[in-house]
Amino acid sequence: MIKAGIIGSTGYAGQELVRILLGHKDAEIVWFGSHSYVDKDYSEVYGNMFNIVDAKCLDDNLDELSKQADVIFTATPQGYLAGVINDDILNNSKVIDLSADFRLKDTDVYEKWYKIEHQAKQYIGEAVYGLCELNRESIKGARLIANPGCYTTTSILSLYPLVREHMIDVETIVVDAKSGTSGAGRSAKLANLYCEVNESIKAYGVTTHRHTPEIEEQLGYAFNAGEKTDLFTVGQKALSAGNPGGNPLLINFTPHLVPMNRGILATCYAKLSGKYTYDDVKAAYDKYYKDEQFIRVLKKGVMPETRWVEGSNYVDINFVIDERTGRIVVCGALDNMVKGAAGQAVQNMNLIFGLPENEGLLMPPVFP
Amino acid sequence: MIKAGIIGSTGYAGQELVRILLGHKDAEIVWFGSHSYVDKDYSEVYGNMFNIVDAKCLDDNLDELSKQADVIFTATPQGYLAGVINDDILNNSKVIDLSADFRLKDTDVYEKWYKIEHQAKQYIGEAVYGLCELNRESIKGARLIANPGCYTTTSILSLYPLVREHMIDVETIVVDAKSGTSGAGRSAKLANLYCEVNESIKAYGVTTHRHTPEIEEQLGYAFNAGEKTDLFTVGQKALSAGNPGGNPLLINFTPHLVPMNRGILATCYAKLSGKYTYDDVKAAYDKYYKDEQFIRVLKKGVMPETRWVEGSNYVDINFVIDERTGRIVVCGALDNMVKGAAGQAVQNMNLIFGLPENEGLLMPPVFP
Amino acid sequence: MIKAGIIGSTGYAGQELVRILLGHKDAEIVWFGSHSYVDKDYSEVYGNMFNIVDAKCLDDNLDELSKQADVIFTATPQGYLAGVINDDILNNSKVIDLSADFRLKDTDVYEKWYKIEHQAKQYIGEAVYGLCELNRESIKGARLIANPGCYTTTSILSLYPLVREHMIDVETIVVDAKSGTSGAGRSAKLANLYCEVNESIKAYGVTTHRHTPEIEEQLGYAFNAGEKTDLFTVGQKALSAGNPGGNPLLINFTPHLVPMNRGILATCYAKLSGKYTYDDVKAAYDKYYKDEQFIRVLKKGVMPETRWVEGSNYVDINFVIDERTGRIVVCGALDNMVKGAAGQAVQNMNLIFGLPENEGLLMPPVFP
Amino acid sequence: MIKAGIIGSTGYAGQELVRILLGHKDAEIVWFGSHSYVDKDYSEVYGNMFNIVDAKCLDDNLDELSKQADVIFTATPQGYLAGVINDDILNNSKVIDLSADFRLKDTDVYEKWYKIEHQAKQYIGEAVYGLCELNRESIKGARLIANPGCYTTTSILSLYPLVREHMIDVETIVVDAKSGTSGAGRSAKLANLYCEVNESIKAYGVTTHRHTPEIEEQLGYAFNAGEKTDLFTVGQKALSAGNPGGNPLLINFTPHLVPMNRGILATCYAKLSGKYTYDDVKAAYDKYYKDEQFIRVLKKGVMPETRWVEGSNYVDINFVIDERTGRIVVCGALDNMVKGAAGQAVQNMNLIFGLPENEGLLMPPVFP
Repeated sequence: MIKAGIIGSTGYAGQELVRILLGHKDAEIVWFGSHSYVDKDYSEVYGNMFNIVDAKCLDDNLDELSKQADVIFTATPQGYLAGVINDDILNNSKVIDLSADFRLKDTDVYEKWYKIEHQAKQYIGEAVYGLCELNRESIKGARLIANPGCYTTTSILSLYPLVREHMIDVETIVVDAKSGTSGAGRSAKLANLYCEVNESIKAYGVTTHRHTPEIEEQLGYAFNAGEKTDLFTVGQKALSAGNPGGNPLLINFTPHLVPMNRGILATCYAKLSGKYTYDDVKAAYDKYYKDEQFIRVLKKGVMPETRWVEGSNYVDINFVIDERTGRIVVCGALDNMVKGAAGQAVQNMNLIFGLPENEGLLMPPVFP
Repeated sequence: MIKAGIIGSTGYAGQELVRILLGHKDAEIVWFGSHSYVDKDYSEVYGNMFNIVDAKCLDDNLDELSKQADVIFTATPQGYLAGVINDDILNNSKVIDLSADFRLKDTDVYEKWYKIEHQAKQYIGEAVYGLCELNRESIKGARLIANPGCYTTTSILSLYPLVREHMIDVETIVVDAKSGTSGAGRSAKLANLYCEVNESIKAYGVTTHRHTPEIEEQLGYAFNAGEKTDLFTVGQKALSAGNPGGNPLLINFTPHLVPMNRGILATCYAKLSGKYTYDDVKAAYDKYYKDEQFIRVLKKGVMPETRWVEGSNYVDINFVIDERTGRIVVCGALDNMVKGAAGQAVQNMNLIFGLPENEGLLMPPVFP
Repeated sequence: MIKAGIIGSTGYAGQELVRILLGHKDAEIVWFGSHSYVDKDYSEVYGNMFNIVDAKCLDDNLDELSKQADVIFTATPQGYLAGVINDDILNNSKVIDLSADFRLKDTDVYEKWYKIEHQAKQYIGEAVYGLCELNRESIKGARLIANPGCYTTTSILSLYPLVREHMIDVETIVVDAKSGTSGAGRSAKLANLYCEVNESIKAYGVTTHRHTPEIEEQLGYAFNAGEKTDLFTVGQKALSAGNPGGNPLLINFTPHLVPMNRGILATCYAKLSGKYTYDDVKAAYDKYYKDEQFIRVLKKGVMPETRWVEGSNYVDINFVIDERTGRIVVCGALDNMVKGAAGQAVQNMNLIFGLPENEGLLMPPVFP
Repeated sequence: MIKAGIIGSTGYAGQELVRILLGHKDAEIVWFGSHSYVDKDYSEVYGNMFNIVDAKCLDDNLDELSKQADVIFTATPQGYLAGVINDDILNNSKVIDLSADFRLKDTDVYEKWYKIEHQAKQYIGEAVYGLCELNRESIKGARLIANPGCYTTTSILSLYPLVREHMIDVETIVVDAKSGTSGAGRSAKLANLYCEVNESIKAYGVTTHRHTPEIEEQLGYAFNAGEKTDLFTVGQKALSAGNPGGNPLLINFTPHLVPMNRGILATCYAKLSGKYTYDDVKAAYDKYYKDEQFIRVLKKGVMPETRWVEGSNYVDINFVIDERTGRIVVCGALDNMVKGAAGQAVQNMNLIFGLPENEGLLMPPVFP
């Protein structure tokens, strides 16, 4: 039985980790960390866990926790983990970080977008970007996982085959993303009050959202990993040499806040780099995803809707080619709490510990 | 492995049965019945089941189904099951009926409230009312279960200990209930359109809702089952002799439509029959519920909220004594799709087949 | 042109006052008071007012404001107005108070339910309870109006004819009320976050909500004002002598939080005091309401829904007699921001200043 | 007093026309047309209008109506008006058509996108596209107005100054639009049920939505009307000669369904055609919009949110320049029922009849 500890277990993502781990055959939670609710019954903070979780919240103490736990999940603000991580912790436990601290390989980019100094650059190299379907083998041997962002997972998985196969002009990518409100976290802010969010939609962080460079870095790797065809050479012009991500591959990413609890839908646009048919593109998606249990490329003509993935670890993806404009429109949908956070974290845990990758993650989407 | 068939699998309750049975270790679905979608892929009707359910919808054919299935769930309109049930079916399969056909023992009452003639009165006697916590032993031996209504389950479980212990004046019961919109079903009616339901609340079926006599009958049994104290004698005056329900124990029941997908909250009011303290009443609830896994009597001062039970088989209950008015206010909350329909149906199946009662039903509530 | 000042103009009720007064022919706002946003553009706090309101928020200064304004609206926390009101203010301006400070005539009751000491008991006598349809004549001459609470307006208007005519047993009144979330105000509290309110319903303040004694006092007056029939004598037994409200007329009042922005629905239950028909009861409602523009007693069989009053000053009311139980069920619906707060405040202003009572209040309900 | 008739008054847009015209000083409704509800009280169909509208629904009869009305609004399905319009009608009454029948100048385009044959091509020439801010003078003399679509109004107004000034590369335009559910109309379809829409977001009509050619045609005019600079010549290459719209100017337009009643947000992306600063672009918007009452270009850094325009005739617009990618992101927000339909229709009526353009349209946005 894997002993798991959660730092930040009273945030929405932390609570979702609890929910998922409760259904996991081979893991048990030994530490419900919550700086804000120390000594309070966990089930007083989350009434759904009454009579299910019988534990009190513990303060953040990563050193102590690492002595008790085989794996530590940190669902914490940016900068926390980088400020406390050390070799002892990593030797004692696997660490799966749901914050952004180890997602970007270039600390300049990190510090520019997050506006905090990185306190643990020495671990950036070994940290594995935990997008399971793309980095499965690296994850298996890792002791530090940078669990991807919710918008990022949706955007990358939606575009990966097209970028990897050089089927789109990477300079033309626009990602227009829409998220449920749980993505905004559980802190008491006026902007997130019911009456402020309900019956409205807005863009936010326009041109400045922090998931942008994360998408760009990962799609840059995908581009570079593709075959060195002519298209690649063309594309390379748009990519700078010499930085870890092979970037700048630059995109426009615009997140929107939607009046619903869960779910992310990313609508992605790009110019096709050639005359591709539906079958050509479908073959590219099949090439990378046809054996992936959690990625569902939908039937022709059926576009993803967030309701069909709610509560589950699935990502639904589909595309339409617009012959009029020469663009492709790709939509990806997932549950930001599950595949966009806690579910993927557990998927990473499963990979690290050699368990079936889907253990604890087979709950079907809940509808309605 | 129990073979299960579902008639009406494309309604909301039917789909929830599918979701729950998919997580059940000892059951598999062999028949996805749907008169409206015959020959259509189930996952075209419910996109959440894409790549999970690989089956086509079959027409309603209870005779044929009973040859293939150990248990049949009928999530069908009133009157359907009573019109087709026969001995062969009941000999071949257990039948768990989510409609109202066999809930009321008095067919006059049935015909008056449902305005249809009952076609199978000969089976009313053997049908067991499947409120698992109250009728556990009878369910175990049954071949025909009348699965209770959603409002009914909430109301009865909220009031049962008080009625059974004669702690309230049964002539003063008012149940004001609120339901999410999935309770209205999946048929395309103007009144259930998004814009008609959203941003509004209304009462409906005032004084005429069909769950009223079901609550009355069951609470009547509870009352009669109580000790024959003076309070009982007083109460008896309000109860007619000679009908199966021991009624009329008459209540006011008012359902309301709430702009949310799932959940029922019943707020119940009654005069206390004596000077009871919090501890007295708590003791009564503990007497009946303290070993019940799916009934959570909350801590003093914490009132049920539907968000804390969503997606799960729990019923949350609590009460407040109002010394000013001599009344008690009891709130009960559950998920109308789970404990109010499909979850309880599976709980009944587990009891019938001698499985652990909670098999397949341990999913924690999903929040937010 | 009446000069109006608003203290607390950046709360939800304050902003609704702004919206309504902007459409009022004979009033202009001269003071946008907001302690929290002093010197900030009003339209930065409420983006809907961009290019409409060109004013900065001013600090709370009732003395100064009273020199500039003919009428002052205080949409402030309990205790504020009582702490600063004085003769000069009342001589300079009319004051319409949207808080509870002057609603209850009995300061013991006030201090018990609100748990604050009343600082201005000397003005309680002259304050007029501003439920326009019931106290129209007194309002006309008043200089201090206690604008009723939102739940209170709904509950009292729903039950008034029945209580006044002694058609119900006043000891049996239960009011089960449901409110949109704007009633919880605009302060940043975890419990009011989108994800906490959405997809849930709960009761709160069970047996302890502060609108309870306000309803009881006003219904007590109604009861005492009725004819001194036998029914009255019976009812009197339930009412104490010697306190200003003629109370205790005791009710059970339970508010619920509903996932919608606006609207209150009160579902009221009481035993009828005799054998009344629909026509009898309808006649009682007509007697008091048939000339009231803002009270709409709906057609037989049509129950109020909050969507039909949203954005307007209407109160919709209807009832059903339950012959089975001898009870009557009355529903009342209004918009808590309008007839439940700002609209009624403007209606009071119109009455005080001799304007047409409906000036500025004729906007039809907004649907959907 | 202008006599107005509405064909299709029981759809959502028709009902919004009723709401707005009720607040219009110089217009009265003489005909509540509704093929589906003939002879039914209008207030039975829309309970908000109880005691406000005392009229029965009349059948569709444009000939008869034109004898009684000065202006006819047709809020009808595509093809209806083209099938019945004639000279007598246009001589008797002004016609403001909320359907798409006369929006597109090229009937081939119409027939291709709408898949119905156009029955009244002879009136296409004289029909004026009723986007008031752009075609004000033409509207004044018109007898047939094609009232623009909701998505269209949002998209065109958001991009107009950029296209007209040739500040963006018109071949790179992507419009990602999000709409509340009232845009889907009031017919009883499964896809629009509360539980199907709530808690979900999806794209629909990807690459095929009918508002696409309408946006393209109008932006084409804007492009052609701009100065014949080098940029124009470059752009011209992308535009075909010889068709009325000067198109194909081709865009990607993707609508999304959002779980809210009202509101449209369009997020628009395009490559800037040069190095423009915030001030450059702001100057372009000011050039066309600074005197427009209903277009609010927000302050720098403040992006439109649909909640700030709900219930009003305002369009809120703002933009962000992304120096990294060389793109501009423009957001526009309006209420699809008002500026996107009924409000703009009334604005057109005001222009036609020489009334103040804002008469009846000054209601501030309703929040929350």
